[in-house]
Amino acid sequence: MGKSVLVVISGPSGVGKGTVARELLARSNGNMVFSVSATTRAMRNGEIDGVHYFFKTEEEFDDMVSKGEFLEYMRVFGRNYYGTPRGFVVDMLNSGKSVLLDIDVKGAMEVKKNYPEAITIMLVPPSLKTLKSRLIGRGTESAEAIERRLAEAKTELSYAPKYDFIVVNDDLEVAIGQCRQIIDSAMLAPAHCDEFISSLLNEEL
Amino acid sequence: MGKSVLVVISGPSGVGKGTVARELLARSNGNMVFSVSATTRAMRNGEIDGVHYFFKTEEEFDDMVSKGEFLEYMRVFGRNYYGTPRGFVVDMLNSGKSVLLDIDVKGAMEVKKNYPEAITIMLVPPSLKTLKSRLIGRGTESAEAIERRLAEAKTELSYAPKYDFIVVNDDLEVAIGQCRQIIDSAMLAPAHCDEFISSLLNEEL
Repeated sequence: MGKSVLVVISGPSGVGKGTVARELLARSNGNMVFSVSATTRAMRNGEIDGVHYFFKTEEEFDDMVSKGEFLEYMRVFGRNYYGTPRGFVVDMLNSGKSVLLDIDVKGAMEVKKNYPEAITIMLVPPSLKTLKSRLIGRGTESAEAIERRLAEAKTELSYAPKYDFIVVNDDLEVAIGQCRQIIDSAMLAPAHCDEFISSLLNEEL
Repeated sequence: MGKSVLVVISGPSGVGKGTVARELLARSNGNMVFSVSATTRAMRNGEIDGVHYFFKTEEEFDDMVSKGEFLEYMRVFGRNYYGTPRGFVVDMLNSGKSVLLDIDVKGAMEVKKNYPEAITIMLVPPSLKTLKSRLIGRGTESAEAIERRLAEAKTELSYAPKYDFIVVNDDLEVAIGQCRQIIDSAMLAPAHCDEFISSLLNEEL
């Protein structure tokens, strides 16, 4: 295995996950890509198949499910299906690029089950009060919607002990630095240098 | 559990483990201490019980073994016994200090078995050739002794896949930086912030 890892990042709405994820990619020197999901929803203007999503019919999606081609998927009757194709992730990892997957707690647990080498990070707010202020600060949601998001946040946060790492997003730069530290040190696991170790062991003196 | 980890560092003779270990401690701002071993060997001039070693009689040592008070120990009849007392390590960790344990592969595997939360790092040379040059450069050992050390090095290196992390000591500063990254990110495991998570979950809004 090369110097690449699958990084799964979760966190409640309003925690700043999107910003952290974008910055991790932007600072990866091209060594990290976002995972591309498969979906049954219709392609929108400007979207490109294989870049924004892999656009699939329900039949194609079902076929991928039955062949075990998803690291995780969500299939609700009458709604659009979404899933993370294993093939794309594995191809990227084999080409030496790390893959970043921004996904909810249920999906993250599924990915970890199907791909145990994945590094799971939960981004958490310094306090629920801060999270609430950030949600209010967006100015886009009703008080009722904010209460619902806070309740969902508590549910998401209850999964924290199941994650490999917890990063508190208080100061954005600190949070990004900690994520990078986690990713960089994950690359130092023996699986990422098995070729080097065997070359050492077989070196002629 | 506080923000402290047990760090086990191993590596073949000549790899620069002592230097890396000392620098990790020196740069820890007092947040890390060396593990103190128990031994049956006689105290030497200038040594302090509980600082350099915990000096024990064979009977005391045997008693500690039978009570399961060692994370690992080496007891060879007719030679001095050495062991890593669990009590010292746990006391330090509970006081918020990380503990650094410089130990051979057999001892490291034993520690990991008895204390799975330990982070194990193997320091490896960039090549056996480099290791040989370093051993020769010391100018303290016969060609025969160097050959023996190289054979031992290969045995130690064969344990690399069982370690959590592999750090190549080519450039000393890079190696130290990687060790610090590993230690810092280990602190981000959920076990180190369970109180924070439960305070988040119980926060009144």
